Parts: sequence; structure tokens; C-alpha cells
Amino acid sequence: MAQKPSIPKGTRDFNPEQVAKRNYIFNSIRGAFETFGFQPIETPSFENSDTLMGKYGEEGDRLIFKILNSGDYLSKIDEQAYINKDSLKLTSNISEKALRYDLTVPFARYVVQHQNEIEFPFKRYQIQPVWRADRPQKGRFREFYQCDADVVGSKSLWQEVEFIQLYDTVFSTLKLEGVTIKINNRKILSGIAEVIGASDKLIDFTVALDKLDKIGEAKVKEEMLSKGISEEGISKLQPLFTLSGSFESQIESLKTILSSSEEGTKGIEELAFINEAISELGLKTATLQLDVTLARGLNYYTGAIFEVAAPKTVHMGSIGGGGRYDDLTSIFGKPDTSGVGISFGLDRIYLVLEELGLFPETVTKNVDVLFINFGDKEALYCLKAIKELRSVGIHSELYPDSAKMRKQMDHANKRNIPFVVLVGEEEVNSNIYTLKNMISGEQFKVSLSELINHIK
Amino acid sequence: MAQKPSIPKGTRDFNPEQVAKRNYIFNSIRGAFETFGFQPIETPSFENSDTLMGKYGEEGDRLIFKILNSGDYLSKIDEQAYINKDSLKLTSNISEKALRYDLTVPFARYVVQHQNEIEFPFKRYQIQPVWRADRPQKGRFREFYQCDADVVGSKSLWQEVEFIQLYDTVFSTLKLEGVTIKINNRKILSGIAEVIGASDKLIDFTVALDKLDKIGEAKVKEEMLSKGISEEGISKLQPLFTLSGSFESQIESLKTILSSSEEGTKGIEELAFINEAISELGLKTATLQLDVTLARGLNYYTGAIFEVAAPKTVHMGSIGGGGRYDDLTSIFGKPDTSGVGISFGLDRIYLVLEELGLFPETVTKNVDVLFINFGDKEALYCLKAIKELRSVGIHSELYPDSAKMRKQMDHANKRNIPFVVLVGEEEVNSNIYTLKNMISGEQFKVSLSELINHIK
Repeated sequence: MAQKPSIPKGTRDFNPEQVAKRNYIFNSIRGAFETFGFQPIETPSFENSDTLMGKYGEEGDRLIFKILNSGDYLSKIDEQAYINKDSLKLTSNISEKALRYDLTVPFARYVVQHQNEIEFPFKRYQIQPVWRADRPQKGRFREFYQCDADVVGSKSLWQEVEFIQLYDTVFSTLKLEGVTIKINNRKILSGIAEVIGASDKLIDFTVALDKLDKIGEAKVKEEMLSKGISEEGISKLQPLFTLSGSFESQIESLKTILSSSEEGTKGIEELAFINEAISELGLKTATLQLDVTLARGLNYYTGAIFEVAAPKTVHMGSIGGGGRYDDLTSIFGKPDTSGVGISFGLDRIYLVLEELGLFPETVTKNVDVLFINFGDKEALYCLKAIKELRSVGIHSELYPDSAKMRKQMDHANKRNIPFVVLVGEEEVNSNIYTLKNMISGEQFKVSLSELINHIK
Repeated sequence: MAQKPSIPKGTRDFNPEQVAKRNYIFNSIRGAFETFGFQPIETPSFENSDTLMGKYGEEGDRLIFKILNSGDYLSKIDEQAYINKDSLKLTSNISEKALRYDLTVPFARYVVQHQNEIEFPFKRYQIQPVWRADRPQKGRFREFYQCDADVVGSKSLWQEVEFIQLYDTVFSTLKLEGVTIKINNRKILSGIAEVIGASDKLIDFTVALDKLDKIGEAKVKEEMLSKGISEEGISKLQPLFTLSGSFESQIESLKTILSSSEEGTKGIEELAFINEAISELGLKTATLQLDVTLARGLNYYTGAIFEVAAPKTVHMGSIGGGGRYDDLTSIFGKPDTSGVGISFGLDRIYLVLEELGLFPETVTKNVDVLFINFGDKEALYCLKAIKELRSVGIHSELYPDSAKMRKQMDHANKRNIPFVVLVGEEEVNSNIYTLKNMISGEQFKVSLSELINHIK
């Protein structure tokens, strides 16, 4: 009863090379997180449904993977919903758990649940998979990793400064130079909406503005008009569309535009503070850029908004994002806990590094040396040497069967193993090893200590 | 609408200390896997249901977590099952995916699906969580990690030898000395069943024999009788119950008992080969022990069977297990592919290391140094130093707010941060730092390079 094996759409198998490359990125991110003082936590893959549902909007609720209750799950159902075949209503009867949709809501739940054990401000990082029942497409998967760092329990803007440095550190470590860290502030968006008399249309306004890059000025204005923003208001926006020049000169323009808005002015001050600090501290390879069109999950953020763009030579959406949210934990009963955090998009970073050829060759190296198997007596002799090699960290293995020499050499070649050791009767009797360099083809007779030194 | 936050039963949050300790174990295992030439793969958290269902017996099917189909999942149901409220039948209509139950079946699926890309023999390791809807109890969770290493594509007994060395290496690395690696062979169990005329009752026979440790000889015999094994057969078993002495002398006894069984004799030869090789190679801290009562998931294994017991001072079930299975991939259409593998039980190893105090202190170290925040000017000065410290790998952070000094010092204490740096106007003006050792209480005025050297 053979089945043709396959995996669910939107999911992936990772082969050894891919795992090694992914771990290279994970380790770079993790290393930077820890150097910056963030500490790891992990949360369960599934949460109680009521922890997740209602936190990501209607669309989000739909995209959350629900887990069927175990046992006779039909025993406690809403009869009416059952008769009506009302899938939506029945779901909460037959499913009490759901797969994690992001790392932020579980983190908020964690902070509230463990608040008495946590010393605030709490700097945590979390690198775990999340699941979304999204329609799979290029670069979008149903299972993917998020890499998040957040601080809760402080409103200090120094954290925004540190997150910009953190982005710069990670991408510099990955040799991915020339990324642009875009920054905006929710208060500036609110201020603009206020100034153009569209405070009640903040979401519509920012959704339209967010599209400036993609659809251009004319279409953005058209969309705003269609959403009921006045011609007069839109004309006040004109300076925004032509905002350019240095961070500082954009700040100056915004000051004028937003002079009548207290909130907008506050937003500008925050941005100016962050920019001055970053100018003083310097960035290694990234550039900080003010982008007033940046909105990202607006309902969430209350202060800074971040997004990272890959170098312009690569066509790729954002490779990271984040911002400040002042009230995340209140949904779980802990109000007034400001948080700020950033996220790294593993899959896109992977694609960018691949495209630019930035994975170091050593990342995918596997086994250093294969010992050819000429029979049990020789194999045992080899395993004694292998034991020594492994104890000094050399990745070594014995070909398990005494197959034809050619087959064994082929195996070493196909796996790109750089060294092969040949041990026949002569070597056993003389207590030596024949070492073959698979790249140069050279062959030497060596002692065990020479073998170790050569391979190391 | 505040909810009291909680997580599903049988799942766990891990705090930074726990994550660090778990990673210490993962890294030790991963390091040994790689030194032995195993390469990592990863498979999706959920598989198509038909990949998993029917692979773990009826009990297993029940314990697999099923994922509810997205959208209007009631639109394509078996009407009769729906009307009858037949949960069991309905499941396959409304759920097409299920969470991974172990790493072995997904590995078999992976090998068959990717057989044309794989160079055999294929040595893979996999460290990922699995999920089981088991009743949670002490040490048993609904989400837990498995750490597996397997080789497929070779029948060589050298692999059994290497797996014993691998167990020894991992536990020695973890300083967990005195573990017992128990070994048996399915062929010996079959041979015994044959000799006592109970070949058709192999499962019943081994299930009973497996309980010898727990219920004793008399009850084991009682159970065998009740399963229809003859008095005469059981009397032939007598030498088994009193089997003792060295590995070699047990082998000799078994030779006599099993002389009439070809399969049993083959099993003895295999065990003898493995034992001789291990005697030649030596183990660092573990002991290899023959245990003819060892059965473990018998339907699975065809040759060697392994199980690792913690040192006798600790009361804990097995902390690892494995064996050879000759036909795992045939369920997915690839017959004749022998495999052998072992698994490490992370949660139990964690409990054992905790109980014996074997986690190194450095595992849970977090931040090396906290810079006290006396205001924006000083904070910026500090961040310049912090940037340098981080670039040489020192985990450093700035207290984000210029809170009361006492509060900041308390924060350092509560987090067990060993060094604190104090920078006021005087330090800024003289371009120095006041470094306080939080353990000794000593305080020094130092330059940046002295600061780095001192903390390193």
C-alpha cells in the first residue's frame, strides 16, 4: 500500500545545505540579540484559541490554523450550528487550541502570565516558527520562522536607537551591506491626518499614503478623495509628496507642516532625537532614512515604525520591521506596559544572501574526512583513529560497508568530502594512514598525529 | 475585556534560564552528531494526515493532533457520518493535516520523496518538536523535542558500533557519567520465541518479558501462561531469568539456549560482533550491557535494540533509545532500505542534569555589564562605549531610563549582572568609566580599553 509521499502545500523540507544556511542566519541574529542583552524565551506551538482569536482582525482569525479537539469532539456541540452546518460557529465547539500566528501575541500573553517572575524592563528574543493558512506563493509559506526582539516596560527612546544599531549589527555581520532602515512615527501620521482634517480617517489615509511607492502620487490622491478626504486637505499634503533631502532637512519641512499639531510635533521630536543619537553613534553599513509614508500594521504601533529594505540591487520586499506599541499587554489584563520591538524576515534574508552570493563557503561544509572501508579488520583500525579525530572536533566517518573502492570514492566526491583516508593491510601493519586530498589529488602516508594536524 | 492568560495543558513556556539550559543540551547533542558525520534536515511541523495515520497503531492514531481544514470545512463531508455524529469518520473529512507525532515517519517520508537527491548511505540528524495528545503527567508533555540520528541505506553493523560510541560521547560531554547502554536484538527475541514454540506469540511473549524488571519473574510467567504460552515453553525460558555475568558469558549462555534457532544464532553473532568492537574501541564513561528483556516498539525493529538508562542514583526511565529497522521506507514505496537510529530524550536528560547539578554555571549567564543611565548626555557617552564592548562580544546594555540609581542597581542585582558601569559628568569630562564589580563590591576608574580588558 505504497503512498506517493508529499507534504502539505506552503510547507517545506529543508535539506542539510539549507538547514546549514538557515542556521547561519539564525546564529548571526541570535548572537547579536545576546550581545545587545536580549534573553531567549520560548512559548508553545499552540495556544488556547481565545489567546489568539480576535487579535489579528477578521482576516487573521480566518488564517489561524485550528487544532481539532481530541476524542469525541462532536459530543459537546452547538446543536443549532451543527444543524445549520455553520462552520464558523462550530469551530469554537470542536477546536480549543490554535497554532501560533506570530510571536508578539504569545509574548504579550507570556509577559502577563509571568509578570511576577519577570524583572522589568524585560528584553526578550524569540526565534520560533509561526503558521498561517495564507495562500502560498513565491516567498510566502504556511510555516515560517520569525526572529523577534522586544523590550517591554520602558518608554525610553534609547531603545529605538538600540534597535537601529541592532539591525545594522545583524546585517553587517551577514555582510549584507547597504540596507536601508526606514523609520516613521505613528504620531506624525496622526498629526498629518489632524492637519488635513481627517483624524477620523487615519486608517484610510495611511493605507493610501503607504501605497505611494507602488501606485504613485496621482492614484494615492484619487484613493484619498474616494475615501472622503477633502480636496483642501489633500492639497495640504503636497509638501509630503515632494519631501526629500537629508533626514535633518525632512525633519525641518515636517516641523512646518505639522506646527499646528501637538501630537505631530511630538512625533518629530522623537524622530529627531533618534536621528541625532544615530548620527553620533554611527552605523556600520546601514543607512537610516525617514519615510513618512511608512505605516505597517498601524492599529498596533503607537510611536516609532521601522522597516528594513534590502539593498537596491535586489528586488525584494522588506526584510525586517517593527515599532513601538504602548498597550499590547492590556488585552491580557496588564495595561500601561509600553513595548518596542523588531523582527527579522528569515526567508527573505535567505533569498537575498543567496542572490548576492553572501553565504560563506564554510557554512555548508559537512564532513572533513571519510575513511574507506576495506574490511572489518581495517575498519576497526580506522575507527580507533576516527575516535581520536572526533575528540579534537574533526568531523569524521567510516564508510559503513566494505563496498568497492570506486563506489566509496564516488560517495566522498558526491558529498564534497575534502579528505579520504585509505587503510589496507600495509597501513595496519605499519601503524600508518594513507591520506588523500580529494581536491588536489595528492596522497601521503602519515602517522595519526600527522593525520590530525593535516586535516585540522 | 481582560482574559486571564494561560497555556494549553501539557505545553510549557520556557524562561531564559530554561532555554539556555535546553540549548546547552541541544548543542552538546548537535555537536556530537556533526562530529560523527550526521547532517541536519528539517521537516514541516504538520504532514498530510495520510502520511502519519496508521503508522503508530490505533493508540497512535488517536493521539495525533489533527488540524481543522481552513474555510468552510463542513462543505465536503460524509453526510451519513455527519448525521450519526460519528467523530471518528468525520475527522478525515474536516481535517487533512496533522502535527508530527515523531521524527521517524517524517524522515522515512523525506527519504522516499527525495531519494533521487540523496547520496546513500544517508546519515541524518533531526532536532525538532513533536506533539502527542497524551494525558499529561510528570515528565510527559503534549509538545516535546526529539533529537534523532539515523543512517539509512546500509546494513553494516559498524553503525550499531558507532551509535554506541555516539551515546557515550554525548553523555560524556554532558558530564553525565555512569549511564548504561542496554542492547538487545530482535532476532534473539524471535529465536527465543521459536525455541519455546511461541513464534506466533512473539509480541505477547516480548511484552511480558519486557516487564521482568517491574513485576518480577513469577508474574511474567503468569502473564505468558495467560497468553497461551505452554508450561513446557516457559520452563525452557528458565536460563533467561537467571542470565547474568559479563556480556561475553551471557553471549555464551545464549548460544546454548538458542543453538537450535538459526535466527537466534544470527542475533547472537551480531551482538558479539558489536560487543567485541566496543571492547576494542573502549567507552569513555558509559557501560554496554546485554539485556535480553529489552523489546521497545518491537513491531518496528528488526535487528539491534538500544535503550539508555540514567545512572542508578537517579530514578528516571530511559533517557534514550533506538534500534535497527529494515523496512521503514517501504510504507512510502521504497522497499529494502535498512535503517538504524537512536534518539535522545531531552526532557528527561534535563531533569537528570538538574537533579545531579550538572549544568555548568556559565550556561545561564546572561548580560556581562549594565551601564547605569544618569541622563541623555551620559547615556549617549555610554552607548559609544557599549558599541565597542559589543563589537568584541561582551554582552552589554544601557538601562533605558534615567531612573533612580538605586532602582537601576537593584535591576542589575536581580538579573545577576556581574558588572555595572557608572558614568556621570565627571567621567564624561575625563573620558573614563567607573566600573563596579557587583560580586566583590569593588569599584575602579578605568579607560575604555581597561574596561574591555577587565570585563573580558
